[in-house]
Order: sequence, then C-alpha cells, then structure tokens
Amino acid sequence: MLNIEQFRQEFPGLNHKVYFNFGGQGILPRASTEAIVDTFHYIEQIGPFGLKINAWLQKKTAETKRAIATELGVTPKTITLTENVTVGCNIALWGIDWQAEDEILLTDAEHPGIIAIVKEIARRFQVKITICPIIETLNQGDSVKVIHDYLQPNTRLVVLSHILWNTGQVLPLKEIVNVCHNYGQSNKKVQVLVDAAQSVGCLPLNLAETGVDFYAFTGHKWLCGPSGVGGLYVNPQSLAQFNPTFIGWRGVNTDFQGNVTSFKEDGSRFEVATSAYPLFLGLKEAINTHNRWGDAQKRYQRICQLSKYLWEELQSIDGIECLKNTPPEAGLVSFYVHKNLSANDLVQTLENQGFLLRTLANPYCVRACVHYFTLESEIEQLILRLKAVI
Amino acid sequence: MLNIEQFRQEFPGLNHKVYFNFGGQGILPRASTEAIVDTFHYIEQIGPFGLKINAWLQKKTAETKRAIATELGVTPKTITLTENVTVGCNIALWGIDWQAEDEILLTDAEHPGIIAIVKEIARRFQVKITICPIIETLNQGDSVKVIHDYLQPNTRLVVLSHILWNTGQVLPLKEIVNVCHNYGQSNKKVQVLVDAAQSVGCLPLNLAETGVDFYAFTGHKWLCGPSGVGGLYVNPQSLAQFNPTFIGWRGVNTDFQGNVTSFKEDGSRFEVATSAYPLFLGLKEAINTHNRWGDAQKRYQRICQLSKYLWEELQSIDGIECLKNTPPEAGLVSFYVHKNLSANDLVQTLENQGFLLRTLANPYCVRACVHYFTLESEIEQLILRLKAVI
Repeated sequence: MLNIEQFRQEFPGLNHKVYFNFGGQGILPRASTEAIVDTFHYIEQIGPFGLKINAWLQKKTAETKRAIATELGVTPKTITLTENVTVGCNIALWGIDWQAEDEILLTDAEHPGIIAIVKEIARRFQVKITICPIIETLNQGDSVKVIHDYLQPNTRLVVLSHILWNTGQVLPLKEIVNVCHNYGQSNKKVQVLVDAAQSVGCLPLNLAETGVDFYAFTGHKWLCGPSGVGGLYVNPQSLAQFNPTFIGWRGVNTDFQGNVTSFKEDGSRFEVATSAYPLFLGLKEAINTHNRWGDAQKRYQRICQLSKYLWEELQSIDGIECLKNTPPEAGLVSFYVHKNLSANDLVQTLENQGFLLRTLANPYCVRACVHYFTLESEIEQLILRLKAVI
Repeated sequence: MLNIEQFRQEFPGLNHKVYFNFGGQGILPRASTEAIVDTFHYIEQIGPFGLKINAWLQKKTAETKRAIATELGVTPKTITLTENVTVGCNIALWGIDWQAEDEILLTDAEHPGIIAIVKEIARRFQVKITICPIIETLNQGDSVKVIHDYLQPNTRLVVLSHILWNTGQVLPLKEIVNVCHNYGQSNKKVQVLVDAAQSVGCLPLNLAETGVDFYAFTGHKWLCGPSGVGGLYVNPQSLAQFNPTFIGWRGVNTDFQGNVTSFKEDGSRFEVATSAYPLFLGLKEAINTHNRWGDAQKRYQRICQLSKYLWEELQSIDGIECLKNTPPEAGLVSFYVHKNLSANDLVQTLENQGFLLRTLANPYCVRACVHYFTLESEIEQLILRLKAVI
C-alpha cells in the first residue's frame, strides 16, 4: 500500500482545506486533470473533427467503458455513458412501456430530482406512485421486508438508492432484487432501478450477481472523476429489447446512405450525440488512481474504518446526535445539531473555517463524508472544530 | 478589425493543418482552453462542492446563458443549456402531448439522429411522419411553398434545419414559421422545431423576430466552443406550459423540506443535473473571442465572401461539381467528385496531407466549411491539392 500522505499529493484539491463532501463531488486526481488537458490539446492538434481523431475518440470511449465495467463487475457492452446519474434514471424510467394503473414503488429516501421524474411519468401515463418507509429502517426493522410488503400486483418498477444519500444506510441490493423478481405470478416481472449516486466508487460491486435491472451512477462523486460524466448499467437480459427515449446518432446504426436502420445492440443505444470526450479520459484516470492505492474491497474497508472513527468521535460531542445507532456501513455520516446553531449556520461557519460539509433537507441534518484517503487527523480536526463552535 | 494572421494565433488548432470541418467541430480558441483549465483548478481550490463554489457556478452558468442569448437575439430566460443540439431536439419532440394520428412534417435533409427520434415517437404514440422534398429546392423552387404544400390538418410540428447540413442551403426561417403558424383554423398551432447545428455561430440571428417555437443548437461547431455544451431556445409563449421529459434537480423548485413543488419557470426547467461546468466558461470565452474580431453580421459577411471564393475555385476543377449553382449562402460548400477517386478516398487522401474535410452520405459528396478566420491562401492551397489528387 502506498504511503497515504504521499498518495494524497495526487489530489491537489485536498490542500488548504478539510474536505468532507465526497457525496457531493469528489476531489479530482492530478492525473485526471492532466488527462483532460492533454486530450483537449491532442484533439485540437489532430482534429478536432476528422477521420483519425474520430476513430481515436471512439477507442478512448471504449476504454473508459471498460474501466467502469470492471469497477461494477459487468461487461462493457452493458454500460451507457451519460452526463450524470439522473440522466441514467431518466433513460430507465422513460423507456418502460407504461400502462395506466401501473404502479411505481419508491422509497421515502429518494432524491428530489428522481421523485420529479416519477411524478411527471405518473401525470403523463396515469401511473400510480407508492412510497414505502425505508428511512425508519436505519436503526431497526428490515428494509427487504418493507419493500416486499409494499409490492402490489400492478407494481412494475421499484426505484431505490443503493446507499441512501441522507442517512447513509446501505440497502441489501441482491435480496431486494430477488424479492422483486420473484413477486407474484404475473408475466410482468417487477423491475428494479437503482440510484447509485452514492455507491459507485464506495462499495465493492458485482452487479451481474445482484440481477439488478438498471443501475444509474455518476463519475464525479466517489469515483472522483470530472463533473459531467456518469453512466447507466442495463441488465443484458433487457438491453436489446429496451428502447431509448432521448435518441441521437451515437445510438443508431445507419446504412451507407445514412438511413437509420436500428438501435445499437449495446449500451451506446441510449447515448445521444456529441459529449465532452476529454472528460471520459479524466474519469478513466481517476479510476486508475484509486486502483493504484488498493482494490475496491480494500478501499471500502478503509472507508468503513474511517467513518466508524468519525461516528464514534461525533457521539462524544454534546449537542450532536448521529442518525445511525451503529457504525456507518459506508462513507456517509449524518448527524443532527441540537444546540444553538442550526445545521445551515453550522455548515456555513465550518466552510468559512476551511471545513467543507453539507446540510440535507429531510431529515434536516448535516452530512460528513470520508473517503479512503481521508486522514484520521482530518477527522480529529473536525471534531475539535465542532466542539469549539457548537 | 484585427489583423487576421495575428488573430488566428488565438486558435492553436489552426497550426500545422488546413481545416475545413467547422460544420463538424470548430477550432477551440486559446481563451476557451485557458478558461476551462482555470475553472477546473478554481473548482478544486474552492470546492469542488460547497456553498461558495456552488453559488459561483450558478453565477457563471447565468453569464454563459447571457452570452448565448445575445448571439441569438433573445432573453437569457429562454435558454436551456444542454449537452448538444440533439438533446435540445429531444426536449422539444418528447415534450409535446402527442395524440394518435398527429403528424410530424420533416424535410428530406434532416440528420439521421433527428430522424431516429421522430421514428421512435411515431412508434410509441402512433404519430405519422411526412417527409417533404427540400433538397431539390437548392437550385430552383421555393422551400416555403414546399413546406406549405405539405402541411395537413393534423400536422402538429414541422422539423427542419436552418442551414441544411448536407447542401448548405439556408432556409428562410421567418417565412416558414409564418406559414406554419397561420396554417388552418385549428386551435392547435403548427409548431416549428429547428435543428440549428449549422446556423448558430454562422448566421446573424434575431430569433425573437422569427417567432420560432424551438431552436436547438450546439456550442462546439460554428461557435468554436468545447464539445459537450449546446442549448435550446424555447419561445417564451410556450415555455412555462411546456413540460420537461428528462428531469432532474436543476429544473425543479423544492420547499424547505426538499419536496418538489414545481418546474422552474425559465429554460432551466429542461436542465437535468450536474454538468461539465468548466466547459460553460469555455463556450462563453469562445463567443467573446469572435466578438473581438467583429459582430455576427460582419463575421457572416466574411464567411460568405470566403465560401463564394471557394465555390468559384472549385468550379474550375475538372471532375468536381458543386451541389449549388449559385454562391453559397453560408460557410458550407458541398461538391460531388466525378473522377477516379471516391469521395471517401478523397477525404482520406486529403487528411493524410493535412487538409481536413468530410464526406456526407446523402447526397454522397464532400463538404468543405470556411469560417470567418479562414485564409484565402488556405482555400488556394486546397484547390491546388485537389487539382493534384483528382
């Protein structure tokens, strides 16, 4: 394992501040920035548009998909590159052949952006929305049972987050998918769409084993890639029958006269048109950087060690209450502030002093995220600062 | 006016090659690359995620919209930032409340990516597609009359390009919109969606005057911005009633508990989630660079002078036939190759020798684009080269 102080030199954004917002956006490795800048220059040198540069960009796009697929435990042909996690959720949600009275089951911990898509689909296609209480299973109860109890004969899709962005709870994905796929005798299998904004780059993943149908993610949070690149995994069983909604030249096959003949067979069928290609190389380099430190299992273990340490130390502060009664299962540590400062005021005060955290609206609390390269000394500095300001 | 040789130093990608692919992708000004790199560094320094950096990015996004709006002759609130022109077309096409038997009128010169969207909409909503023959009006006939003749009582939307990407023809937008909006007595106005991939950054525009409903464009062609940033103008008359399809946190209002209350009232209602923000600043700088040379009218005049010169010189080559009988009305000059080389072979041969052009599939031809900063000597070099290889 690399010396962590030395390794952290690879992330210039770690300097001169103490950063706990990896769930908002990760710190970009130097290798990513360099790959992005080099690619901008190379594109201008060879292209920007021509036979040679276009072929090179295709090759680099394929390499980025391979790097992502390896992290997710799937094949590259199941990967669609998108602008962000929300676009991936849109692709899945708008691609289903909705019928009036179909039902979508959401957890009560989903992001407002995702809820807004579901509400518009409900309006357009007379689809029903049911919301199940998952947040209350953080400290007791069984999330799998809650989802099972809320499935109904007309449920077509379950939408949930692999890691809840507000409480940090990790949902048992394989068990939930199993319950959904085996529900009822209908010929319409209940499918599962996962908002993986907080899980990709944090949890070790083997998506092929889980059987999940749709898994939408971003590269700019726990993978520490540039903002503007994310992706979607679609289960190969449904890939070729699932039609794209937003469509463009990147997703279609054409004949020699330029006539559209079909959608592509792999994940590129959901890709639209020209993207910020240099950023693809930035994401690939970010993934490479993490793997130089350790594999996904090792990184996750370190994240859990550090989040446990933060969680324990937070308990020692009068006026702070962690949402979770037991150590976190990932890098997100959320806590209530009970003293004279509001959560918003606390986060502003901390940012003024060089500590970056964020608030969440529901439950109204503060969230601190640790990554595998967070230092114990950074956690200790935060605790001292919290004790001073609360 | 700035000395052109000196001004061209602002575009490092012009060195060591002769570039005629502005309709594919523009050459990025040095100021754009610098703004992008500086923004990446600034985001890492201040954020990448926090109260201060998030507010700064909002401010810079608004500035980019203002710069674009000025180029288009509209107000900033009508502008949606998108990943590319095709996403803008998707927003318009999927946002219409399609009824079975509605009809979409397309010209026969539309891009395969756009045709693919229309075909999928036709399949999902039992909408009919009609295609009108515009390509044949390049040298004779009246494009406005053709469109008028193809309108039918159930036509809901006309989809056309402001500048045809294959023949370079400029369609009279204001007259076409007028004909569509005044067609029939139905309470359903025939709306007009424009693929402006080739017109924004080339034609001087005053969209507010044209009355057009939807105008989708990209920043990475004639505006010479980075790939991955484009936009959509939606007429303010329909903006607030027109619902987004792909949806995310950037397009919705939430209350203090994070509940979604409504879509935003301005163009951001169609924006989804996290984008490659540094590129927004790159596009803004590209627009600034052009305006330092001259305003949109002056740039367009120069483009036409140069495309006329190229068109005239091409006529002098045995075995080359320009598609257009009269001088081009914009920067695109397309020509057939009648000699021993195919268009594909010619473009490959030219690229090997440092001249970047492209082929088109239908009509099968070669396209050369000139921008306002193209040199007459570059045109002369191309002509000499063509004479040598054909």
